[in-house]
Amino acid sequence: MKKITKLNIPHLNKAAGSIFRFNKPSSLKAGLPPGTPVHVGEQVAEEVKVTVMDYDQDRCEVISPDNPEECTHYRKKDTVTWVNVDGLHQTDMIEKLCTCFDLHPLTVEDILNTTQRPKLDVFDDYLYLVIKMQTYNPERRQVDMEQVSFVLGKNYLLSFQEKEGDTFDPVRNRIRTSKGRIRKMKADYLAYALLDSIIDNYFSVLEQVGEEIEFMEEELVKEPEPETLHRIHILKREMILLRRSVWPLREVINSLIRGEETEMIGEDIYFYLKDLYDHTIQVIDTIETFRDIISGMIDIYLSSVSNRMNEVMKVLTIFAAIFIPLTFIAGVYGMNFDRVTSPLNMPELGWYYGYPFALGLMAVSAAGMLIYFKRKKWF
Amino acid sequence: MKKITKLNIPHLNKAAGSIFRFNKPSSLKAGLPPGTPVHVGEQVAEEVKVTVMDYDQDRCEVISPDNPEECTHYRKKDTVTWVNVDGLHQTDMIEKLCTCFDLHPLTVEDILNTTQRPKLDVFDDYLYLVIKMQTYNPERRQVDMEQVSFVLGKNYLLSFQEKEGDTFDPVRNRIRTSKGRIRKMKADYLAYALLDSIIDNYFSVLEQVGEEIEFMEEELVKEPEPETLHRIHILKREMILLRRSVWPLREVINSLIRGEETEMIGEDIYFYLKDLYDHTIQVIDTIETFRDIISGMIDIYLSSVSNRMNEVMKVLTIFAAIFIPLTFIAGVYGMNFDRVTSPLNMPELGWYYGYPFALGLMAVSAAGMLIYFKRKKWF
Amino acid sequence: MKKITKLNIPHLNKAAGSIFRFNKPSSLKAGLPPGTPVHVGEQVAEEVKVTVMDYDQDRCEVISPDNPEECTHYRKKDTVTWVNVDGLHQTDMIEKLCTCFDLHPLTVEDILNTTQRPKLDVFDDYLYLVIKMQTYNPERRQVDMEQVSFVLGKNYLLSFQEKEGDTFDPVRNRIRTSKGRIRKMKADYLAYALLDSIIDNYFSVLEQVGEEIEFMEEELVKEPEPETLHRIHILKREMILLRRSVWPLREVINSLIRGEETEMIGEDIYFYLKDLYDHTIQVIDTIETFRDIISGMIDIYLSSVSNRMNEVMKVLTIFAAIFIPLTFIAGVYGMNFDRVTSPLNMPELGWYYGYPFALGLMAVSAAGMLIYFKRKKWF
Amino acid sequence: MKKITKLNIPHLNKAAGSIFRFNKPSSLKAGLPPGTPVHVGEQVAEEVKVTVMDYDQDRCEVISPDNPEECTHYRKKDTVTWVNVDGLHQTDMIEKLCTCFDLHPLTVEDILNTTQRPKLDVFDDYLYLVIKMQTYNPERRQVDMEQVSFVLGKNYLLSFQEKEGDTFDPVRNRIRTSKGRIRKMKADYLAYALLDSIIDNYFSVLEQVGEEIEFMEEELVKEPEPETLHRIHILKREMILLRRSVWPLREVINSLIRGEETEMIGEDIYFYLKDLYDHTIQVIDTIETFRDIISGMIDIYLSSVSNRMNEVMKVLTIFAAIFIPLTFIAGVYGMNFDRVTSPLNMPELGWYYGYPFALGLMAVSAAGMLIYFKRKKWF
Amino acid sequence: MKKITKLNIPHLNKAAGSIFRFNKPSSLKAGLPPGTPVHVGEQVAEEVKVTVMDYDQDRCEVISPDNPEECTHYRKKDTVTWVNVDGLHQTDMIEKLCTCFDLHPLTVEDILNTTQRPKLDVFDDYLYLVIKMQTYNPERRQVDMEQVSFVLGKNYLLSFQEKEGDTFDPVRNRIRTSKGRIRKMKADYLAYALLDSIIDNYFSVLEQVGEEIEFMEEELVKEPEPETLHRIHILKREMILLRRSVWPLREVINSLIRGEETEMIGEDIYFYLKDLYDHTIQVIDTIETFRDIISGMIDIYLSSVSNRMNEVMKVLTIFAAIFIPLTFIAGVYGMNFDRVTSPLNMPELGWYYGYPFALGLMAVSAAGMLIYFKRKKWF
Repeated sequence: MKKITKLNIPHLNKAAGSIFRFNKPSSLKAGLPPGTPVHVGEQVAEEVKVTVMDYDQDRCEVISPDNPEECTHYRKKDTVTWVNVDGLHQTDMIEKLCTCFDLHPLTVEDILNTTQRPKLDVFDDYLYLVIKMQTYNPERRQVDMEQVSFVLGKNYLLSFQEKEGDTFDPVRNRIRTSKGRIRKMKADYLAYALLDSIIDNYFSVLEQVGEEIEFMEEELVKEPEPETLHRIHILKREMILLRRSVWPLREVINSLIRGEETEMIGEDIYFYLKDLYDHTIQVIDTIETFRDIISGMIDIYLSSVSNRMNEVMKVLTIFAAIFIPLTFIAGVYGMNFDRVTSPLNMPELGWYYGYPFALGLMAVSAAGMLIYFKRKKWF
Repeated sequence: MKKITKLNIPHLNKAAGSIFRFNKPSSLKAGLPPGTPVHVGEQVAEEVKVTVMDYDQDRCEVISPDNPEECTHYRKKDTVTWVNVDGLHQTDMIEKLCTCFDLHPLTVEDILNTTQRPKLDVFDDYLYLVIKMQTYNPERRQVDMEQVSFVLGKNYLLSFQEKEGDTFDPVRNRIRTSKGRIRKMKADYLAYALLDSIIDNYFSVLEQVGEEIEFMEEELVKEPEPETLHRIHILKREMILLRRSVWPLREVINSLIRGEETEMIGEDIYFYLKDLYDHTIQVIDTIETFRDIISGMIDIYLSSVSNRMNEVMKVLTIFAAIFIPLTFIAGVYGMNFDRVTSPLNMPELGWYYGYPFALGLMAVSAAGMLIYFKRKKWF
Repeated sequence: MKKITKLNIPHLNKAAGSIFRFNKPSSLKAGLPPGTPVHVGEQVAEEVKVTVMDYDQDRCEVISPDNPEECTHYRKKDTVTWVNVDGLHQTDMIEKLCTCFDLHPLTVEDILNTTQRPKLDVFDDYLYLVIKMQTYNPERRQVDMEQVSFVLGKNYLLSFQEKEGDTFDPVRNRIRTSKGRIRKMKADYLAYALLDSIIDNYFSVLEQVGEEIEFMEEELVKEPEPETLHRIHILKREMILLRRSVWPLREVINSLIRGEETEMIGEDIYFYLKDLYDHTIQVIDTIETFRDIISGMIDIYLSSVSNRMNEVMKVLTIFAAIFIPLTFIAGVYGMNFDRVTSPLNMPELGWYYGYPFALGLMAVSAAGMLIYFKRKKWF
Repeated sequence: MKKITKLNIPHLNKAAGSIFRFNKPSSLKAGLPPGTPVHVGEQVAEEVKVTVMDYDQDRCEVISPDNPEECTHYRKKDTVTWVNVDGLHQTDMIEKLCTCFDLHPLTVEDILNTTQRPKLDVFDDYLYLVIKMQTYNPERRQVDMEQVSFVLGKNYLLSFQEKEGDTFDPVRNRIRTSKGRIRKMKADYLAYALLDSIIDNYFSVLEQVGEEIEFMEEELVKEPEPETLHRIHILKREMILLRRSVWPLREVINSLIRGEETEMIGEDIYFYLKDLYDHTIQVIDTIETFRDIISGMIDIYLSSVSNRMNEVMKVLTIFAAIFIPLTFIAGVYGMNFDRVTSPLNMPELGWYYGYPFALGLMAVSAAGMLIYFKRKKWF
Repeated sequence: MKKITKLNIPHLNKAAGSIFRFNKPSSLKAGLPPGTPVHVGEQVAEEVKVTVMDYDQDRCEVISPDNPEECTHYRKKDTVTWVNVDGLHQTDMIEKLCTCFDLHPLTVEDILNTTQRPKLDVFDDYLYLVIKMQTYNPERRQVDMEQVSFVLGKNYLLSFQEKEGDTFDPVRNRIRTSKGRIRKMKADYLAYALLDSIIDNYFSVLEQVGEEIEFMEEELVKEPEPETLHRIHILKREMILLRRSVWPLREVINSLIRGEETEMIGEDIYFYLKDLYDHTIQVIDTIETFRDIISGMIDIYLSSVSNRMNEVMKVLTIFAAIFIPLTFIAGVYGMNFDRVTSPLNMPELGWYYGYPFALGLMAVSAAGMLIYFKRKKWF
């Protein structure tokens, strides 16, 4: 239970708790001067882990510095430097690192606050970008979200994650093995490659959410239970949260493309960013389609409840309509009028075929009812 | 069952599977460097088939080259060259062809990925356009979708389809027989003519979906079953997917018209593109109208369910209200009070007209009930 | 039954057929080269009828030429020439006329296709405008729609209608009698006057639709039947179609006003077009209000169904709750316990006031129930 | 009943009639040449009453001219001239007045047509502005609407109302008593002051509508009747109409502010118009909030209907479930099996404690049922 | 009960009263000349309290002047002067203060009117900004809203609050103790810091609203009562009001950022305002998410009502269907046919195993029913 941004599908109460992922902790900061570095969010990593990857076309070096100030050295070099930080709870360490790269206090504050919406801030000598990394947790059938911050300078890229474990391994491999064009390109291409790996991962998350939807749908057709509706609503809420974390991304990447910030973003990666934008649109599109489909599922559920109520009512009505007249007939011949006093008093009781006549009357009544309901197509 | 983009109307489970048409396969690619050519989508053609049509006003040549590299030859000629490719699973062959025409790696990647939204990418010396070709499958009562990619250069047009069979035959005939103005025009007019044939086909697809709607509507009026609702929901989902594949087209054709990309698109086809745009708007308009109508159908269904429940309840109530008092009367005269002990104990049982009196009481009670319900207009 | 664009209010099936008014016939054309003149739509006129009205401030001439080519003569004159065509099924005749005025092939195609949305196409020496003429058919309580195309050149106006009978007679009279400023103005004013007569007619159509709404509303308050809901839904669908035929008009007239097309449209009719625009907005506004009101009516209907179900349930419950205890009491005293065996066995049967006691018990029980339901305000 | 624009809250039929307020009479005009002055709307004033107020910083003159042509005199003076007209049915008189001020025929037509949306027309030497004046009618609990037209020239303001009685008295008093800055300002400030008085009045109308909402809400909580829903729907429709008469105002005042029309509107009233704009936004905001609240009320009503149905069902079920088993037990011991024939035939009837045993059985059954429903929290 | 802007969650009637918070009192002003200073709103403070804080980098002075005119002195000084006013009911005092700073009469009017939407007015030498300060009242479980007006001049900031008690204490402390950069910055930074403290507080309000939502959700899952729905609707209405007070803020802060008003807002606080904007977006985002979640809760509630109705119906049907046949059988053997007259008359009554046979018949019937319902999965 050490993850922050979980979407508990099976239990509503926990999912309810997750409403606050984006804003709950912020009240910690009310009253502090702006720019104060405070870690906002649960502590999810054991300790802060800094990894530096420094490369150019010819060589590639990977180190884990003990002291973040060692990074200053790399900042001045012409090579591409990628500093990845896992864990945000040691604010002093993060602050030191940020000082090495002359980051604005508001940026430091934002890096430490894990409750943000995706956004892009343009500063004079770097870009600051926040994005949500989503991973699907198959055990709990839920989507985990983790905030990743990027600081993109001319020749360096800082990435800050809440905890270890990410979607960046293929990129790391491509750098190490010098596969593809990554080693020939600048820090902006590296940033693109990391963003691409995050957004590509959205597709597999959506794929699994989609399988969940398919599963629900089958259940809905076979045997809709109140529990099914409950789960559909949790899915719906999950879509609200996914949507909220992806929508702003569109604008973020669009403003990267619009090239207003020419120094940090080279022209040669225009097509790559365009491609990224197309992917984002496709993710949003899929989320919207899922929302439409889930809404349709709720309608189907509700109308199936109505239909079943109809069924129940019909069973009741058929039973009542058949047996009530029969019982009435039996009741009539159970009356105790004094046959001795008057020949008009229930002469049927003395008929030779009285009982068969009564049973016959009942049979006719029941058959009439059955024919009536058959005609009405009630069964 | 070898088609990719089917909309299974009769069975929900399969239709559910089709949610993922656009994004399911994309997770295959997570982790690969961008621009890697991978075929994303089911293999639907036996083998890749390349056909070259090279023509100008005077002559027209049709060949099926064994080696895609033969096309390089045509690229340099002034004639209009149309290279059509059916089948995308042999990535190396596609790649070779793309290399002949100097396509950007991201374009090659996009051609092979059949899960895209319609879009237009503008490169320096060609335009890349993705569109969905829809055909109605009358047996399965469903819409099949296939992705078609166009690459439009100055004097050539490449078209990539997932499988053989398309809506282009009338265009091929017009080229062969030199009918209309097609042989006098450039590659841009050819691209227009092919797009026009695809969009014209949308109308016949919508026509058939419309007939499906009409059919449902009749069923809805005659005899609404839970099955009817189910089918309406499948129709609704089909509209979600159609809409999703047509909406982006509007923007695509609009940016073709805006003439920002003057070199590949001549001014003389402005009116033709405008016409195409009008058709697209009309398709979207029809889809939106269908959506509105389908929503109305769901409402009608639900209210008819309520009405029938009302009917059932009335039948029950009428039966109960008529017979319960009668049974009560019969019950009263079935009591065993000792008439010997006291003259007050059920003297009716000893009346001469006791039994007729009881029956009369019952008749009056039943008649009263019937009049009451008649007045309430319950039947 | 020879009209195309009918909205059958009384019968759903026919109204359903009318969904395709805009797009159904278009599949006829799939495969033909663009610009091929084909009549798309039902043939509704006996024969094509051409009427020429040629006038300036001093004189006015009206002729019905046998051969459309006679119109060429008028095109060159400085006078205002209005050529009105009723009936579109004789494509060769229409084509000849269009050739006289040098119309683009796509325009000819559009004139013959009666399934279009309202639109404005700007060509170098003429404007092409499509609009829907609505008339209310009081017998069938439905709106008929007919497509009217205008071609506005410098000194001529062509109008194409599907059949005879239109809203133009007052304009014809004003020209003949030289009333108002029409004879002093150019062809653009004539176009305005005709558009104005069409849009003015929308108001009377809406007025009658409004009366239909009022009628439904009264029915809804007095006695809602399933039939009522059915009719409300047909009204709703009619609004969908009306809306669809009027919305694009707004943009059409707006782009006329924006005066980008200065040659055909003089500055002196700016205020008139502005007025036309205001009327269009008002029509749209009314349609939107009607839609809102119709939605409200559906809600009222549904809640009245719920209310009646509630009533039915209450009647049932009251009957059941009153008589079931009574029947129970009667049942108790109908038991046959052997009073001889034991003094404990149903001593009431032997009481002097046994029967009155039992009846009293029943009366008390029934009265209690009645008081209980009275308190609950069930009746 | 001599008012035109009433919103009959208590009776739906009349409110339904008010749908046509904006467009019903317009069909009177179909066929007339544009610019023909025809009075469209009910005649609501006894006779047309013209009042002229002519003032500058030093003096203020109020006269009621017999002949509208006397106003020409004032038009040429430098003083601010406010001509107010109550009643629109004497078209010749209105026409004469308009001729004095050289108004465009379309403006005259618009002034006489009381079925317009709020709008602003900019002519070369005057602005024409239409607005709806709302007053709350406390007796009928309804909002009355009256159209007011303003013609604002360089040094004059014409105002046309449908009938006597308006919100302008405080402005008249300020002019007479020279309170505030009104006597020092131009005609544009006068126009602002009058608009301000109309919009300020919207607030009191909304206040009273709000009280109506509050009243309904209380009723909804205490005792929801079908009548309550009916009234809520009438309120909802009233909001549709209010909204429709206020929304366009926003654009009207915004274009006044945008200062495109510099001659008639001085720069010194920019802040005043801005303030007016803020008020309009606030009115719209309140209307939207009311709409949201009314929608919520309908939901509450419907769910309270469901809840009551639930209650009814529970009462029925509890009664049925308790008494049906009891009646069954009584029925069993009312069977007539021959105890003489066999000792197995109903030996209970001969038990010493037979009857107490049967009653006990019934008590246990009833108690069991009560406990069961208690546990289910049904009461 | 002396607060104006309360949102009474527990009692609907009071919450209903709060609809008018924004517009109710405005009708007080109808008829007064614009710019008249009238206090609109309830009197919530004992007496108006003015506090002046005057500081620069070196020194900081805090005084509470008896006469507002003393502030004129500070206006001319270069230091930053913050004049905070608590309480608005003594209009003369406020007016005097405003005169010292040469505020426009419309600004004074707006300051005194506590029923405004957030807005920004740009005057030549100051900005006027209105915002709502929200505080959560834990006792009444409701959000209190108070209007705060800011007037930002070159070197001074005026803030007007309705009553004592605000979110500004941390800012005051930072000024006094010279913590952070506040003492080094201008009045614009002070304005930013105060806005920031207000918006930061929104987060804690939302946090508590969120806890309320969580609480409701748990209740909804455990035991949905009509009361629960009632509370959800009150929550929903609260969201409508919160949203309404926050949405306009977005535009306000955006226009501050757009830097059109360069003199009062320095370039050095651009990043701070950008940060503020991000926070506002996040607040809006959270409110929208809450609205979506609350809508979902209403759906869940309604479907749970349907489900329970279904349950009730099933219980009724099961009881009826089991016991009605049994009662019928008992009724049959309670008939009094004369066994002496004919051997056909109810021979079962004379059987040796007659009674056990009847009981067995009943058992079989009941068991059959139970199996039938078990198969239908009714329990």
